[in-house]
Amino acid sequence: MVDTNKKKIVNDPVHGFISINHPLIFDLIEHPSFQRLRNIKQLGLSYLVYPGATHSRLQHALGAMYLLDMAIGTLRSKGHQITNEEAEAACAAILLHDIGHGPFSHALEYSIANGVCHEKISRCFMEQMNREFSGRLQLAIQIFDDAYPKRFLHQLISGQLDMDRMDYIKRDSFFSGVIEGAIGSDRIIKMLDVVNDDLVVEAKGIYSIEKFLIARRLMYWQVYLHKTVVAAEQTLIKMLKRAKVLTSQGEQLLATPSLQFFLQHNVDEDQFQKSIGSDGALQAFAQLDDSDIMVAAKMWMNHTDSVLSKLAQMIINRKLLSVTLKSSPFDRSYMEEFEQRFTQRMPNLSDYTDYFVFTNSVSIKGYQPGNESIKILHNDGTLLDIAEASDMLNAKALSKEVKNYFACYPKELRKM
Amino acid sequence: MVDTNKKKIVNDPVHGFISINHPLIFDLIEHPSFQRLRNIKQLGLSYLVYPGATHSRLQHALGAMYLLDMAIGTLRSKGHQITNEEAEAACAAILLHDIGHGPFSHALEYSIANGVCHEKISRCFMEQMNREFSGRLQLAIQIFDDAYPKRFLHQLISGQLDMDRMDYIKRDSFFSGVIEGAIGSDRIIKMLDVVNDDLVVEAKGIYSIEKFLIARRLMYWQVYLHKTVVAAEQTLIKMLKRAKVLTSQGEQLLATPSLQFFLQHNVDEDQFQKSIGSDGALQAFAQLDDSDIMVAAKMWMNHTDSVLSKLAQMIINRKLLSVTLKSSPFDRSYMEEFEQRFTQRMPNLSDYTDYFVFTNSVSIKGYQPGNESIKILHNDGTLLDIAEASDMLNAKALSKEVKNYFACYPKELRKM
Amino acid sequence: MVDTNKKKIVNDPVHGFISINHPLIFDLIEHPSFQRLRNIKQLGLSYLVYPGATHSRLQHALGAMYLLDMAIGTLRSKGHQITNEEAEAACAAILLHDIGHGPFSHALEYSIANGVCHEKISRCFMEQMNREFSGRLQLAIQIFDDAYPKRFLHQLISGQLDMDRMDYIKRDSFFSGVIEGAIGSDRIIKMLDVVNDDLVVEAKGIYSIEKFLIARRLMYWQVYLHKTVVAAEQTLIKMLKRAKVLTSQGEQLLATPSLQFFLQHNVDEDQFQKSIGSDGALQAFAQLDDSDIMVAAKMWMNHTDSVLSKLAQMIINRKLLSVTLKSSPFDRSYMEEFEQRFTQRMPNLSDYTDYFVFTNSVSIKGYQPGNESIKILHNDGTLLDIAEASDMLNAKALSKEVKNYFACYPKELRKM
Amino acid sequence: MVDTNKKKIVNDPVHGFISINHPLIFDLIEHPSFQRLRNIKQLGLSYLVYPGATHSRLQHALGAMYLLDMAIGTLRSKGHQITNEEAEAACAAILLHDIGHGPFSHALEYSIANGVCHEKISRCFMEQMNREFSGRLQLAIQIFDDAYPKRFLHQLISGQLDMDRMDYIKRDSFFSGVIEGAIGSDRIIKMLDVVNDDLVVEAKGIYSIEKFLIARRLMYWQVYLHKTVVAAEQTLIKMLKRAKVLTSQGEQLLATPSLQFFLQHNVDEDQFQKSIGSDGALQAFAQLDDSDIMVAAKMWMNHTDSVLSKLAQMIINRKLLSVTLKSSPFDRSYMEEFEQRFTQRMPNLSDYTDYFVFTNSVSIKGYQPGNESIKILHNDGTLLDIAEASDMLNAKALSKEVKNYFACYPKELRKM
Repeated sequence: MVDTNKKKIVNDPVHGFISINHPLIFDLIEHPSFQRLRNIKQLGLSYLVYPGATHSRLQHALGAMYLLDMAIGTLRSKGHQITNEEAEAACAAILLHDIGHGPFSHALEYSIANGVCHEKISRCFMEQMNREFSGRLQLAIQIFDDAYPKRFLHQLISGQLDMDRMDYIKRDSFFSGVIEGAIGSDRIIKMLDVVNDDLVVEAKGIYSIEKFLIARRLMYWQVYLHKTVVAAEQTLIKMLKRAKVLTSQGEQLLATPSLQFFLQHNVDEDQFQKSIGSDGALQAFAQLDDSDIMVAAKMWMNHTDSVLSKLAQMIINRKLLSVTLKSSPFDRSYMEEFEQRFTQRMPNLSDYTDYFVFTNSVSIKGYQPGNESIKILHNDGTLLDIAEASDMLNAKALSKEVKNYFACYPKELRKM
Repeated sequence: MVDTNKKKIVNDPVHGFISINHPLIFDLIEHPSFQRLRNIKQLGLSYLVYPGATHSRLQHALGAMYLLDMAIGTLRSKGHQITNEEAEAACAAILLHDIGHGPFSHALEYSIANGVCHEKISRCFMEQMNREFSGRLQLAIQIFDDAYPKRFLHQLISGQLDMDRMDYIKRDSFFSGVIEGAIGSDRIIKMLDVVNDDLVVEAKGIYSIEKFLIARRLMYWQVYLHKTVVAAEQTLIKMLKRAKVLTSQGEQLLATPSLQFFLQHNVDEDQFQKSIGSDGALQAFAQLDDSDIMVAAKMWMNHTDSVLSKLAQMIINRKLLSVTLKSSPFDRSYMEEFEQRFTQRMPNLSDYTDYFVFTNSVSIKGYQPGNESIKILHNDGTLLDIAEASDMLNAKALSKEVKNYFACYPKELRKM
Repeated sequence: MVDTNKKKIVNDPVHGFISINHPLIFDLIEHPSFQRLRNIKQLGLSYLVYPGATHSRLQHALGAMYLLDMAIGTLRSKGHQITNEEAEAACAAILLHDIGHGPFSHALEYSIANGVCHEKISRCFMEQMNREFSGRLQLAIQIFDDAYPKRFLHQLISGQLDMDRMDYIKRDSFFSGVIEGAIGSDRIIKMLDVVNDDLVVEAKGIYSIEKFLIARRLMYWQVYLHKTVVAAEQTLIKMLKRAKVLTSQGEQLLATPSLQFFLQHNVDEDQFQKSIGSDGALQAFAQLDDSDIMVAAKMWMNHTDSVLSKLAQMIINRKLLSVTLKSSPFDRSYMEEFEQRFTQRMPNLSDYTDYFVFTNSVSIKGYQPGNESIKILHNDGTLLDIAEASDMLNAKALSKEVKNYFACYPKELRKM
Repeated sequence: MVDTNKKKIVNDPVHGFISINHPLIFDLIEHPSFQRLRNIKQLGLSYLVYPGATHSRLQHALGAMYLLDMAIGTLRSKGHQITNEEAEAACAAILLHDIGHGPFSHALEYSIANGVCHEKISRCFMEQMNREFSGRLQLAIQIFDDAYPKRFLHQLISGQLDMDRMDYIKRDSFFSGVIEGAIGSDRIIKMLDVVNDDLVVEAKGIYSIEKFLIARRLMYWQVYLHKTVVAAEQTLIKMLKRAKVLTSQGEQLLATPSLQFFLQHNVDEDQFQKSIGSDGALQAFAQLDDSDIMVAAKMWMNHTDSVLSKLAQMIINRKLLSVTLKSSPFDRSYMEEFEQRFTQRMPNLSDYTDYFVFTNSVSIKGYQPGNESIKILHNDGTLLDIAEASDMLNAKALSKEVKNYFACYPKELRKM
């Protein structure tokens, strides 16, 4: 009786119809902490470059769960035992795996969240919800923590071939319009198998894996780390840092209560942990979404501190810093040149040059062989790491971190 | 020199690559009033039902401009003269046609905007921008006002077959995942022609037009007027109305300055008009986007007025009112039954029953024959209204307003 | 053991991966009579107008089976009992429902097959295969014949909303590139239910049904009955008729043995029936595919009979007759005008004018209310015919046969 | 006047609407030698594995021309001069570049065409058509031959990044349903530029190029060289070779006149060349399409030579040889084992074992650096070979030929 009320079908432009098959999942979706993800863009400020990329973290969580359901179906059809409880728990775990993301995730982490990463916060949310749900999330948490015997369930949620990636690459490609990021998630899922409790891929799926790795990399450089996106994120970081400095100097900035909390406190992991089931960092965080940041920026556009107001205007009016990208660090002299121009052009801001002229780096690892590697299962039963099994991919390059350096500076300085 | 800097290509998941071909268009896109559309969802609260529908009004404006460009190309290839100035102006006009939309457009209009419609506000924005751009928008405004001799240019922007609809039906279908709303906009555009200064469709396009009209209607009932979407919008209207009542009673609600403006003033069309080039309603409106409303609702969740806080919680936590839909009005007794239940269950709110239990209607006209009708051009040169030319569509039904009535009430009351 | 060898996944560009779940289905697919469908284009000569429309009847049969599988899943999830045997049999029935199609189906029926329709021939094939498979097709045949108690199973295979249509409209739209024919088959299937053993559609599916009916009609006039397609088919009919006349006059035309059989015999339904399990019409038919006709036409291009050779050249070199289309019959005088021109221009063919100048008609019924109607299930349990339930569709027009008349004549005559 | 008659729009499911913009192109499309490509499947026997892959070489030729048109537009917009004559000629050249393909191209080349490659035959067709068109193809032939000064035009038609590949990978991916083969041809085209008369790619297109190379390779192993496809092609080769042996022994096989020609003659390049404008190999070839081969196979199924009949049955009834694939050659002993089994099971065919049990290899080069390499243009003007510019792709692997070995044998032998 109750169950039929808890059945639901959600329309998803990426996967079609997503069915909610477990009552627990239904209840989790209804929870305010999950609903909050509707108002957090999956790709943060990327929509300033790719206008279509306004999709939310809620969509992605549902999509990843959908793919997990499909993967479980495939593994069962190949003879692997997965109970309904395990399936439900794994679905719950992937649904909640990103619940700890804040608005403009990385920008926040590097400014007002003091480096507390979203995985840790997700874990706190799960703990808190588990209490509210009287322990119904116990198994999900075990799987999430990789503390459950059937380790492949954890790998489906977090690993080189997890359903998280399968969904986000496909989804981000779909919404950004960078169609080359499209991956054959259906085919990869059909090729999954389990050997010695490890997720592996059948040999005939090797080309799909190659393509997946290349597509992921393409999405990184073309979308996630697009230089204008990076410039926007850096500007946001600088703005939030400035807000924090001003707050620490006793200034009372206009901000929503939840953002105010993070401007006024230097939260650390411990504080998140302690606030579970109580009142504090986690509860303030649970109220925070993209709108708090956007509204703050809009209000700060008119602030008397000209560093803060200038940075806020840059974000709201999309007058972003210019970026130069290189594969090696920028010479000190290169940066000094820009700093001098800045001081000349904006003498009143000369004490704050580092808010507007700076260098930094972004990097990605395409793939890490080793413990967590992608294993290819050949017909004769042998397992090979994809880096060895593929004759096309550059094993060394695959595992190497690729690092790009960027220099940011106001557009006006470019033309001098 | 300047021109090459003003060339741009935008990635759009619906149409592919959109090229910005005119310097004026480039400048308009860069304008803060246009950039603001990034933070206004095209479909307002529909994303509570269709999670994918988070696309912005900015995307739609770019898409409509893209289709207009294509339509102009088709008409030129059929021998109709359209100068580059006219093309640029028409593109500018369609780009700005929706710039007067506020966040959650209809909800706003029916609550704090006192019924000033977005077309009027768009027109004010155009006027203001025209001053800033030293008259470069003159021709665009003439076309927008239907005051330019080549009337078909206006019809491409606003009419039964305008590029606005061509884009929004296709786009809303794409992002909501309701694939049946997909229309053959490319084919319809290829079939366009001009006769006596009127936009017409070649006879072989008749089936595409039929499908367009049916798809549009499907999108209305399936998405735009989906009963849960309607419930959400009504709740938002009630919340904003309550906020306005409280403000008028001297209460100082937490709200961003721009939202505050509209809570405190009873703006009318005239005030928008007067603030052009000055400071007032239009400038406050230009700061308003989805984030102001979402942030206000989040803060009001804890307000002491339990009507306001309850309505705010319903929106933020997605605990929406239940809705019953009918094609005829609800009996008074039907509503009274719910009102009584409400008073019994929530005696402390019994003076505010009409915030939570109420009835209203939604309606659409599929198509209006007459002056603005869709004309089908047959090979022998005769023109027929689509309602006559189509043997399949019900001409009478086509033109008839379809009205549905809904009753809203808290979910808990359903189960009594 | 055997079963795992009989599992199979087929890649389908329309539906994705199609799984073969029943051993019987695997065996049917492997059968030469089914494999023959690979070489019969689903849309006959339409590929002369829509180059992409080269898809085969085999693909369509697999696709329809896939959708049937999905429909059975939906009905089971709504509590309707369908045994595995019934599911397998229904799948077998839909897989074979079109197995009696010959190459260029209608053209063949109206020329050398003497009007024996493909349904009858499908039924003969099923009978013959049932013998080969020792009765394993018994239940499938019962369902196909509508002689099985659960009548909705038959309706899923053959009815106003059968999976045959769901697949072919979607598939033909996909391959022809007429994207407006795309229908929401997934949504319609999710809305299916069974009441009193009858397939019905839930009320909220009504707009999808409207769109389905309109899309179907669009596909008819835009693709299936496109005037150039009709001209090509008529030319093929004329060519085959001429070949038959010549054969009856003792001429021994070059043709494959199986085509030869139909040139030399005047087969009727009875002969098909009698040849089951023996040797005759059915076995010759089982050897016939598109290649027999194309090869014959190529060889006949050089035949001394100039009627035959001219018609063959028209098909092979795609120099088709011109067509004029009208909604009313052509006057005798209109046709006479063309006949005279023909006699003047090609005096040597003046005795054969009716091979090149002729008029005929095509017609479709969009939808037949009545016994076999599409029934809409409202929330209160009432059932309404779609023609009544829809306020948009013209009930009368829906049920009316729409007939178009065409006149064909050589292109050269147009310019006189 | 004539021109408007020669305008045309073709519906293409891959690219949308393809416009025919040049009168010469219109005339070429109408030519019987081009129309013949309608009846030649782009992917030969791949449709036995991927049922959707029935698309024709005609579609591909149109698609490649469409992309070329787009590429010319991009290059012009970047300031490169391309006259209308050059554009038309380049379009003609790409339209005809594959006109020399026969049915089941490679199978034919390796059996009855004595290794005369399709490029040579295309060139003969162009020569012959040039005569018919009174020299209007002169410029197209020069470009095709790489004898025209603007060499990048040739590279657009035939090179590492030619529009031929751009279309076929995308199209073959679309029709086979192997969606991972989808490439961003639009983006790659937008990134094209010309430096020193050489086609180059802007640096920001590097990830798209990587993905293109990986997708191409994926399509090779997943589709073009899929082991069942290879088995089918090998069977076809064997059948045609057997037919030729029997013909040389004086046997008169049933076959269409054009196939007969190639069974009876040992044509070489010279004979094709000599028959231009006369009667011989080229004219027979111009009559040959898929239907000739399929019809021959059907007729040979009943031939008294049991080698021929068995091979023909295998193709028509899709009872293909089994294949084992390896990256190293098969041991002699491995093959001998199968040969013995064969002799035991089919003693009457023991003299013809090599028709049914054999080994061979397939290989691809992903990419050849060097003269014809893909050059990446960096912002500072430097050009780098993609193999150097990409940190991800394995430069050595990229250029290395990858060779796979396969062993074929009748399925029945597998289970012994």
